[in-house]
Amino acid sequence: MAIQLKLFLLLWTSAVAVTSAAQSSTRPNIIFFLVDDLGWNDLSLPISGQVTANNKKYHTPHIEQLAREGIIFREAYMTPVCTPTRVSLITGVNAARHRVTNWTSPRKDHNTDAEDEQFSPAAWNINGFSPEPGIPRSFYGTPLPQVLRDNGYFTIHIGKAHWGPRGTAAASPHNVGFIVNVAGHAAGHPQSYLPEEEYGNMPGKGSFQSVPDLEPYYQTDVFLTDALTKEALKAIDYPVSQDQPFFLNLGHYAVHTPIMGDKKYLQPYLDRGLDSVEARYASLVEGVDKSVGDILAYLKQKNIHKNTVFIFASDNGGLSLTPPRGGTAHTHNLPLNVGKGSVYEGGVRVPLIVKYDGVAKQGAVSKNYVLAEDIFPTLLEIAGIRDGKVIQQIDGKSFVPALRDTALADPERVLVWHYPNKWRSPDGPGINYHSALRRGKWKLIYNQRNGKAYLYDLQRDIGETNDLSAKNPGLTKELTRLLGQKLAEYGALMPVDKKTGRQLAYPE
Amino acid sequence: MAIQLKLFLLLWTSAVAVTSAAQSSTRPNIIFFLVDDLGWNDLSLPISGQVTANNKKYHTPHIEQLAREGIIFREAYMTPVCTPTRVSLITGVNAARHRVTNWTSPRKDHNTDAEDEQFSPAAWNINGFSPEPGIPRSFYGTPLPQVLRDNGYFTIHIGKAHWGPRGTAAASPHNVGFIVNVAGHAAGHPQSYLPEEEYGNMPGKGSFQSVPDLEPYYQTDVFLTDALTKEALKAIDYPVSQDQPFFLNLGHYAVHTPIMGDKKYLQPYLDRGLDSVEARYASLVEGVDKSVGDILAYLKQKNIHKNTVFIFASDNGGLSLTPPRGGTAHTHNLPLNVGKGSVYEGGVRVPLIVKYDGVAKQGAVSKNYVLAEDIFPTLLEIAGIRDGKVIQQIDGKSFVPALRDTALADPERVLVWHYPNKWRSPDGPGINYHSALRRGKWKLIYNQRNGKAYLYDLQRDIGETNDLSAKNPGLTKELTRLLGQKLAEYGALMPVDKKTGRQLAYPE
Repeated sequence: MAIQLKLFLLLWTSAVAVTSAAQSSTRPNIIFFLVDDLGWNDLSLPISGQVTANNKKYHTPHIEQLAREGIIFREAYMTPVCTPTRVSLITGVNAARHRVTNWTSPRKDHNTDAEDEQFSPAAWNINGFSPEPGIPRSFYGTPLPQVLRDNGYFTIHIGKAHWGPRGTAAASPHNVGFIVNVAGHAAGHPQSYLPEEEYGNMPGKGSFQSVPDLEPYYQTDVFLTDALTKEALKAIDYPVSQDQPFFLNLGHYAVHTPIMGDKKYLQPYLDRGLDSVEARYASLVEGVDKSVGDILAYLKQKNIHKNTVFIFASDNGGLSLTPPRGGTAHTHNLPLNVGKGSVYEGGVRVPLIVKYDGVAKQGAVSKNYVLAEDIFPTLLEIAGIRDGKVIQQIDGKSFVPALRDTALADPERVLVWHYPNKWRSPDGPGINYHSALRRGKWKLIYNQRNGKAYLYDLQRDIGETNDLSAKNPGLTKELTRLLGQKLAEYGALMPVDKKTGRQLAYPE
Repeated sequence: MAIQLKLFLLLWTSAVAVTSAAQSSTRPNIIFFLVDDLGWNDLSLPISGQVTANNKKYHTPHIEQLAREGIIFREAYMTPVCTPTRVSLITGVNAARHRVTNWTSPRKDHNTDAEDEQFSPAAWNINGFSPEPGIPRSFYGTPLPQVLRDNGYFTIHIGKAHWGPRGTAAASPHNVGFIVNVAGHAAGHPQSYLPEEEYGNMPGKGSFQSVPDLEPYYQTDVFLTDALTKEALKAIDYPVSQDQPFFLNLGHYAVHTPIMGDKKYLQPYLDRGLDSVEARYASLVEGVDKSVGDILAYLKQKNIHKNTVFIFASDNGGLSLTPPRGGTAHTHNLPLNVGKGSVYEGGVRVPLIVKYDGVAKQGAVSKNYVLAEDIFPTLLEIAGIRDGKVIQQIDGKSFVPALRDTALADPERVLVWHYPNKWRSPDGPGINYHSALRRGKWKLIYNQRNGKAYLYDLQRDIGETNDLSAKNPGLTKELTRLLGQKLAEYGALMPVDKKTGRQLAYPE
């Protein structure tokens, strides 16, 4: 296998290239802080604008601080599951186009789609992203960290990667443009968060999910989240000492399953009456919050906080299946409906907070939409890279203008989600074989199994409980057609009907 | 555990600081290419000056090429086993002083000394090297790569590390001054060289020796040695693109056990009549040679070969126990006696070749002694670092003058080896509880078990088969006393007598 990054490059000419934003003389550092499976609302910060039950449950004072110092994007979206989001993040491409529509296995050529009676798996890119051409069933593109590195950034990956399986280049962040990698590989979750379990590396117990590179912390008291924070700060030290701008991609394994308690934070949640699973989950969330706090403190200590953009996000909605979660299924993200895996808001809406001193107004809230694929052009614009050469067509749009002008929004932008896969059995609301479209206040949910479409007014019904499709057949039809058009533009795959052996037609 | 590198620094004022070597305007890149357990003579290059049986057995054309382009140090020495050498290499300190006198376990606080009837283990530094103070039973010092990094070098570690156990900072090369690390950790050998065995990372089969960070190569046809070479060249690419001098520390896992065959090279050795173990061993050696060739080719391709110092060495003598080796024990390094673990020449004399265009005369041979601890001041001198701040006292001596003047030697330099440990049962010649001293042509072997001393004339008897102590009692006594003095100067540990509970006295 040739690990080569010699790409045939096309000039990239998206929105960023023509943006005429003033460039600062010193390029800012960029921290992209990605939490895994954190729900939109799993914060003490009232991100929805109103205090919810979740906001009272969780304790995230540092994320509150971050929001006071930055902008909350209230309508930020990712895809329903992990790998599609992560591939969109580093390529700027919508999942319907890059076709890595489901999570990837650590095993090469392994289709993670669950067995289904009605459909055969679509020919989606089961081998994830690839920085080199010729890997079957992968999406070949120029990754964001490579562009940043090639333009003078010192690029660091810490934590969860999950861009491609073992046996492919993208299993190593070093092949995705990162100079430094600690703990990133093919797996999508940790075998263990616990140093006493050596993060899954106990002899004889190794698995796909054994977290690499953290041997110094074995048998100490350093929880995985803290180990990653320490490694991140240590890695930053070098470019800071060199006065070189850095890009830190910190992908926490938290708060993904296994939902292990962080004992430093656990007891108060138990005392407040949370069941043992939910208390453990809340302790994972608080651990992530501590990581935010530690990094903010480091930036201040090094006096680089004014020149470091800090972007906080989650990769999909909060998990809401029971088990592994406690409580009642599909309710963990209330007021949003459902959770991870679903195209309902609970599965795709995520917290997004951006601190960018001198550019982003502090304590503001933006209604500008953000999609996973927007991160790519946004970061290039922040880095002042206008002639980034990438081979893929970029679907995303920089949201830097919305940082400068919080009143800015693009209410007519059409947002599309597409999931022609089976995450798991049984189906749940919006889970498995669904697409969705948002235009303004209207959200269309499209069930690929039967072609049925549901219509919600997000302005009045953020919980998507009141289907208005029967009352608005014309609009439902229009948006369904628009969804079909968009999917056709993206060249999206549809599930294959077992009876006919053919892909379904696009919605119309 | 605090991973902190805030050290109380003393100004380092050894030989290097006062050397007045002319500095080149562009600092050279440095590649330190360390093979594991390669015998002095396990090359097709006639390193002894005469063609031996081993030279006819092995096939290492690229190492021959390297020798044509550089200098052979015929009398280069390391310690009898792995970790003591590696700690000396990165600290510049003799093993008798740093007290990491045996190989370290991947397990913290684990003494690897074999059980012995006569002696209790000495209080040696079973936790290896430490870049931070306060780790019990570790040697705290400023590591070479940190000094290089702090002085502008881009530092890369690839392959075997083995400086300290899991649960201590030195288990990660990132804590030893390396910016990039691939595949280095606490372990001293690989579980497997084979991509089909995922270098020891098959689910359920994880061990201390599972090689980390190489997931892209799993289930391909890339043998471990080749994977490390590819990673090394990929890592070099970045500093080369930045015109930043680099230090590459490439520690091959080869040719350490498990002696697995590299099928690309195996058949010819079988055809020539080598037994299956020895053929596999020879194939590992040839794989290392290929790595040398690939790197030399890369350097030429990038046009940096003239400004890159290439140092080829082994960390101790060739393994000569049967099993795991084929053939007859203690004969694999002939004409040298014994092998790894012994203070006889077969255990400590190693191949050392240095290519340094414009400085080192091509195709020359030097009789200048080199010890493991000499690498530290040598590399600092090559890097032009005169005011390196290190906390430890440096025992080594730069051999840069010997590169410039191949006639140079220091025949009266006293060399000391000290091994107050039990490597394994049973004892072998010079194996377990031995010290040794060389002065000029004379080599003294001192058995700590009984205080007996043996004397050899290396000029006439490189094989150390003819003990001259009875014929030269005065010299034997003098050198024994000198050995005792040297050990006292180093503050060396002696084994503890089980009967008295006390350390043995130094030789006298």
